[in-house]
This record gives sequence, structure tokens and C-alpha cells, in this order.
Amino acid sequence: MPVLREEVLRRTSLGILQHAGVPLEHARLQTDLLLEAELRGVSSHGLLRLRRVIERIGNGVADPVTVGSHHWRRDSFLAVDGKMGLGPVVAEAALARISERARQTGIAVATVNNSNHIGMLGFYAERIAKGGQTALAFSTSEAVVHPWGGRKALLGTNPVAIGMPTEGDPFVMDTATSIVSMGEVHDHVNRGAPLPAGWALDAHGEATTNAQAARSGALAPFGGAKGYALGLAFGLLVSSLAGAALGRDVRGTLDSNAICNKGDLFIVIDGPNAMLADYLEQLRDAEPAAGFEKVLIPGERGRSQRADQLRNGVSLTDSVWADLQHMADDAGIMKG
Amino acid sequence: MPVLREEVLRRTSLGILQHAGVPLEHARLQTDLLLEAELRGVSSHGLLRLRRVIERIGNGVADPVTVGSHHWRRDSFLAVDGKMGLGPVVAEAALARISERARQTGIAVATVNNSNHIGMLGFYAERIAKGGQTALAFSTSEAVVHPWGGRKALLGTNPVAIGMPTEGDPFVMDTATSIVSMGEVHDHVNRGAPLPAGWALDAHGEATTNAQAARSGALAPFGGAKGYALGLAFGLLVSSLAGAALGRDVRGTLDSNAICNKGDLFIVIDGPNAMLADYLEQLRDAEPAAGFEKVLIPGERGRSQRADQLRNGVSLTDSVWADLQHMADDAGIMKG
Repeated sequence: MPVLREEVLRRTSLGILQHAGVPLEHARLQTDLLLEAELRGVSSHGLLRLRRVIERIGNGVADPVTVGSHHWRRDSFLAVDGKMGLGPVVAEAALARISERARQTGIAVATVNNSNHIGMLGFYAERIAKGGQTALAFSTSEAVVHPWGGRKALLGTNPVAIGMPTEGDPFVMDTATSIVSMGEVHDHVNRGAPLPAGWALDAHGEATTNAQAARSGALAPFGGAKGYALGLAFGLLVSSLAGAALGRDVRGTLDSNAICNKGDLFIVIDGPNAMLADYLEQLRDAEPAAGFEKVLIPGERGRSQRADQLRNGVSLTDSVWADLQHMADDAGIMKG
Repeated sequence: MPVLREEVLRRTSLGILQHAGVPLEHARLQTDLLLEAELRGVSSHGLLRLRRVIERIGNGVADPVTVGSHHWRRDSFLAVDGKMGLGPVVAEAALARISERARQTGIAVATVNNSNHIGMLGFYAERIAKGGQTALAFSTSEAVVHPWGGRKALLGTNPVAIGMPTEGDPFVMDTATSIVSMGEVHDHVNRGAPLPAGWALDAHGEATTNAQAARSGALAPFGGAKGYALGLAFGLLVSSLAGAALGRDVRGTLDSNAICNKGDLFIVIDGPNAMLADYLEQLRDAEPAAGFEKVLIPGERGRSQRADQLRNGVSLTDSVWADLQHMADDAGIMKG
């Protein structure tokens, strides 16, 4: 597995994006997003995604320049038409506005449609939390998850992130409402490994442990009926408020050609008003159960992996590194 | 199992509450809340809870008259000191204010502390959704859930409800973030039935299927690490914004003596802006998986149970009906 210094990856990604016509500031943000995911071990949302961004720009379904158009539906309700902009560029512009507005009104919401994939939601929640506010972030995606008790994929992975400041590092949790990501299934295909029972159905809606079969089937919601209910509610929230597509109508986060019609939803609250560190410390210090090394706080394993990879280099798969080098060649960039 | 007409239960509960000094309007709301839970089959939040409400009023830790005091921290951020009021009374007063405010500003939030148990969260989400708006509701409770990988109860059941209008009945989901409620464990104790594996730990933090042992132990979070992360995030959200107690410090929803120091959080958004009925219909019509009769929409089973019990009478356990009759006797009310 190639291990690269973070600056090398950053420079390479920036060069590739700029060559595709992305203004420097936007290229920095898109690079930050992908690199932060890579650093935290969420490689399904890492540099693997850069090729799709570049292809979508080339195909005219991602506009590298726009930040989207903003319409204040009400004082604390910003409706954003992403104008096919890059996901993180449109999201950050929206968040900057509602973060500022929430300082005045206490809470503000932004709905986003007609934007591109916004990647790891925790990225945005963490930025808001570092600025001293509380954030909830939701997004929708292509139908790859089956409803509890159903046979076919009808829901997106409908992730949520919640972030808030604490006396130390911010608390940031970020999870899809599927039992695993489709990236994890692909990973099992690549390793020729079977899937654990309960992860997936095949194309006929029958339970399968065959990773290859699961790719054309559906992932389970996490946590059975409750996780299904939450994932569905998050999807409906986003879609109903942002006016975005739902379920099998969603396009554009897993392909390079279709206009992306998923939605995003951000809520920023001006708080907290109480401190959390003592309680988080109690959790960290709690005696672990049989088979566990310690009780983890969501987000902290990723943060320690980030620190480690910043120090010792970032591990990429051969194929992601090869693809980055290809794109760098195409862009005429000197290699790392 | 006694089966009673809804009006009989309503009249009995109203009489008992009024005898305890609860003004008629507040008695109606508290009765509605408990009865709606009962009607929908959520008996853990039903009339079973009436005795505790009465005892807490008697013990001076619930004030039947106050609606709490309201402080607009910002234009769209209402901070409510519940003044030890009845949970649903304080909650509804807060919701009325932020619902009205959200019509002007697009979104508004209320934090509540120093209030009593607010019962089934879906009750509030449904009322807001029926008024044409979107609601998110969160609450905290005594530590009865262990962190994923931990041995001891350190989290509340930290429920969430999300409601929104659709072209038909509102969509309302409402779930605790524990794998089951402690009420369900008590139910297994009463029936002498073992618990399914994975539900609970005993007092030493060892996995148990003994329902009796689980009562002094801890419930699992639903959905493993992801459900733990969500439940923790919901608890932190409420506590940090409302300035309410967390984890083992929480008191007053399971006892009759302690001042209640949990918190509640409500967000009302002025929307939706898109329609959901077609998608919900796709889910309802989806082919069920092996072992399932049909794909369910969260909240709809409860709603059909409600219709059925309104028609055919409400089933109560012997002990809940006996207790209601005792309280009615004590209050000098003519029985059913």
C-alpha cells in the first residue's frame, strides 16, 4: 500500500482540480473535504471520489465556479439552488450564511438542491462546531438500502452528522443509516471475502453473503426497524424541505453523467449553553465490556487516525494512487 | 384483560387529575398524552404513568398550574424554565410559541429544563405536523443504556421524534435509541420469559437473558455502535442546549420524589415544500421480504391500532386498570 505525505496528496489534488477549471479557493475546499475523509480512514469518501468530480465537470453536470444562488425564504430559512456547483463549495457558502444568521436569530436552516455530492457530513459539522455552534447535517443519495421487511433498495444511505463544541475537541458524530456503506461491499468483492449475514440482499431480495451479488441488490438499514425509521425520516426531511428527489429517482452521486437531484439540509444552532467534558470523560473512562478494549466517543478514532496519518503519511490503495497519478499526468502536473 | 371505552378512561383520568389540583385544560392535555400512547399500543407511556404524575404533584415536585417561564434568548431561540410544571403542559406551551415564531422566521427552537416527563414524543411531532409544519423532538432520561462496548448504564433512552405533513396523514416516527424500553424488560419479568440475546447486561456488565437481572443492569443501544453514537449525540444536543443533566445525574422521570432535571429540545421548521405521498405509497406497496407481511411506514401501525381501539375499546392490563380504579376511589370519583 503506498503511503504518501499529506502535502503531496494535497498538491496533486489541487493541481488536478485547477487544471479542470476549478478556482483555487474551490479546489482547496474540495481537496480538504476528500483529504479529511482519507485522513480519518473514511476512504469511501476520500480521494477515490476525485475522478468522479473531474468527470462530472468535464461532462457539464458540475460547475466548478458557482457557489449556488441564495434565497431567504424567511429570516432564518435559506433556500439554496446549487446551480450544479461542487458539493462542498455550495454547502460551505450556505453554511457560512446560516452560521452568521444563527448568531442573530439563535437558529437557522439551509436547504440545498441541485448541488453535487457533499461527501463526509462530519466535515461540515466539525467546522461549525469549531466556530462555537451546534450543527445538524443531513443528505440523501441513490436508493441502495432496502426498507425493513422489504426486498428492493428504496432508500438512500441517508446520513446524519451532529456536531457541537465541548471544552476540548468538538463532539462530531457522522453515520449513514445503512448497516455499512456500498464501498465496504466493494471492498469485500476486491478481497474475495464473504459478507457477514444480515448486511445485504441480492437482486431478487433474498439474503446473501455473496459480496458480488449484494452489489446489484440492497444494503440493510442499520439497527433493523428503528434504523429504517430514522433513515426514512432523514430522507423525508431533506426531500420535503429541499424539494429534492427521493428513493429510486435520485441520480448523480454515483455516476458521472446525470444532473444530481439529491438534497442536503443543514441546521445551525447558536449554542451550547452547558459543558459536556465531564460526561464525555466518564464515557471514555468507563470499564469496557468483554471483547472491547475501551468505550469510544464517536469521531475520536477518526481524529486519532488523522493525527497518525499526518505524522506518518497517508495510506492509499494502489488503485486510488494509480488513478491520482493518471489524472496528474493528464493534467500535466509533475508527480509527487 | 379489561377492555374499556376511551371516554371512560378519559373521564376517569380527568377526574383523578382535577382532584389532584390540575386545572381542567392541563388535565385534558396530560390525559390526551397518556391516552394517545395507550391507544397506539405504547402502553409503557400510557395510563401506567398517571400514578407517578399524581404522586409527584402530591410530593411537590410537579406543579400542576404553571406552564413554565419563557425567555427568548434570540428571535428564534426560546429557553423555557419549566418551573416543575407538568411535562406536556410545559412542552405544549413552548411548542405553541415556536410554531408561531417559525411561521415568521422559518425555523425556531425551544429548549426546556426543569420540567416533568413529556411521555411519547410522537404526540408533539404529530400535533405540529397536523398544523402544517415539520418538527424534531428530543428528550433525555435516566441512565439505563450502556455505551457500545461498555458495562454500565451511562445514557438515557434518548428518544427522537420527527414529524411532517404529507398529502394524507402526517408522517411521524418516534423511537428510543435503546434496543427496547425498560418497560419491555419489566413485561418479560411479569411473564417469566427470557430476554432475547443482545438486549441487556446484568449489574456486573455481563450479557444476560435473565429479565430480572437486566432490571438492575443496562439495556443495549439499538443498532450497535451507530445507535450508541446517535443516542449519545441526541443526549448531548439536549443537555448542551437546555443546560440539563446527563447520564447518571438524571433524576425524576422514574421516581416520585426527585426534582426532574432532564431536558427536552424541540425544533419546528416551516415546511414542507414538496410532496411525499407517492414515495410513501411506493414503500407501502413494496414486495415484502421472506418472513414479513408487508413494508410498514413508521407510525402507521400505531395509527391503525388507535382507530381499532377507539372503535372496539382500549385494552389495559389488570394492574393498570386496578390502579386507575384505586386512584378514582381515592379521588371520590364514580367509577366508569
